[in-house]
Amino acid sequence: MLPLDASNFATLLEDHDNFLFDCDGVLWKGNQLLAGAAESLTDLKKRGKKIYYITNNGASTRAQYAAKCRKLGLPAEEADIVCTAHFTALHVKDLLNVSDFVTPGTGPKIYVMGTPALELALTDLGLQCIGNGPDPVPEDFLEDDWRAESLDKDVRAVVVGFDKHISYFKLIKAACYLNDPKVHFVATNADTTFPSSSRDIIIPGTGCIVGPIVMACGRKPVIIGKPATLMIDHLKEHFYLDVSRSVFIGDNLHTDIGLANKCQMKSVLVLSGVSTLVEAKRYAESTAAADQDFVPTFYLDDMGTFYSLLLLS
Amino acid sequence: MLPLDASNFATLLEDHDNFLFDCDGVLWKGNQLLAGAAESLTDLKKRGKKIYYITNNGASTRAQYAAKCRKLGLPAEEADIVCTAHFTALHVKDLLNVSDFVTPGTGPKIYVMGTPALELALTDLGLQCIGNGPDPVPEDFLEDDWRAESLDKDVRAVVVGFDKHISYFKLIKAACYLNDPKVHFVATNADTTFPSSSRDIIIPGTGCIVGPIVMACGRKPVIIGKPATLMIDHLKEHFYLDVSRSVFIGDNLHTDIGLANKCQMKSVLVLSGVSTLVEAKRYAESTAAADQDFVPTFYLDDMGTFYSLLLLS
Repeated sequence: MLPLDASNFATLLEDHDNFLFDCDGVLWKGNQLLAGAAESLTDLKKRGKKIYYITNNGASTRAQYAAKCRKLGLPAEEADIVCTAHFTALHVKDLLNVSDFVTPGTGPKIYVMGTPALELALTDLGLQCIGNGPDPVPEDFLEDDWRAESLDKDVRAVVVGFDKHISYFKLIKAACYLNDPKVHFVATNADTTFPSSSRDIIIPGTGCIVGPIVMACGRKPVIIGKPATLMIDHLKEHFYLDVSRSVFIGDNLHTDIGLANKCQMKSVLVLSGVSTLVEAKRYAESTAAADQDFVPTFYLDDMGTFYSLLLLS
Repeated sequence: MLPLDASNFATLLEDHDNFLFDCDGVLWKGNQLLAGAAESLTDLKKRGKKIYYITNNGASTRAQYAAKCRKLGLPAEEADIVCTAHFTALHVKDLLNVSDFVTPGTGPKIYVMGTPALELALTDLGLQCIGNGPDPVPEDFLEDDWRAESLDKDVRAVVVGFDKHISYFKLIKAACYLNDPKVHFVATNADTTFPSSSRDIIIPGTGCIVGPIVMACGRKPVIIGKPATLMIDHLKEHFYLDVSRSVFIGDNLHTDIGLANKCQMKSVLVLSGVSTLVEAKRYAESTAAADQDFVPTFYLDDMGTFYSLLLLS
């Protein structure tokens, strides 16, 4: 692990055609663009580099993400956005052999706990979604009396993402559907918390929605988001992404750097987000083999520093 | 592991003064008394044996459990009931040094996710409970905008049990309170499912309520219920329970038999509930040391068989 500086930046730039950026904590925080991000990405594009935006956040579709990027001044087309809502939908479509020509929302039925964007992405690819939105436990609900009568016999998959409407009734339904081993189980990601603007608060993430379902049904889902490699595998297969000519820039050692190492991609840890240099050094200096999975190739402060290095190259 | 039969039952009876029974799956199923249960316990009492009812279910107070037992024809006083609602309250009272003479509901403040019975048990011992009951996520809720302003600065502990009103808003609040390391974290139990009357359905248990909070805050709670030994430790300390003269009768290898072995108590697996003889044999025949924790001393079909052995003795 080396600091990214003038001496190695030029080589990094020369040796790589594809720059894969995590978003929150690297390019922006919430709705606030971080300094140097827009300038860097615009400059990289001018130099003929390909940019990808890789995010576990399932709150937006690809079109919505591209619009957000452009609003913040980042150069983005819908095709550059690699987000869990879209890739989860793609994966479920493949699992259930849905034709490319099916009318939206008319294909196989799936039980969804997730964002409206996830439901939209699934519906767009032909799937029929049930269960999404609020579903509070009935006032007179008794566990002892629960029978499976209100379950839909046609459900072929349970798809779980971030769902702020999590309820005990939904946990029961998801677990009961998954009790049938033929029903597929797919989760957008497993991040336990969202990046938080304050050290005083914790914002539970998608992992806290998926976790209780895993506990109840005793099955593990296919996970789409980082550090699982499915999204990169897709880029390799369908967009001929050459990982040896790609570099991943992220702020999270477990998801971003973990993914880069799994895919044997070079990586840059940016210190403007979740992970700290102290944590990165702890992994770098550890003698435990598993800890090496989280050691980035390079680190630097933020995209402001990245841009100043870019200007020197 | 031996079948409990006429040859070893007489010795079991002679060598033990205390018979600790798990309830659901052993003595009853839901509201249905199981055959032989009432007759066996009444007979044991007549022979001068002490009976305890040991349950992880936090849906009832001790008084409510004793009433249920008597209604089903089981001999029970409130003091015989060892249930998580009461023992969780006792433990929190000790943690927070609440005096025995405090007026109910006026002592230290705690954030509770649990049953009304858990709240009642806590209030009775002097604690002030907030948060219990429905607390749905507001319609316009955005994680990005969440600030800790609506948190109560006086909360000294987070207590989590089975809560059918689980909501994302409650998960956020519990995780934020627990972000302060001085705030205690106590859970009634961690069973991932309830015993279910049908193989077709899964009823998520208290572990599915506690689990997402553990994931979000990264802390582990003190767990009161089986297989944790806290309830038995309390009986040893305050009621001078002699474990060498005690036998535990349960249907769950992980909670009941696990607890008995941790406490070095003899145990009987009853096959009328959660665990099967196949599972028990798998543990008994395993060469892995950890698997021995779940091997019962004896096994038998049900309390009907227990009663027929009792009649022969």
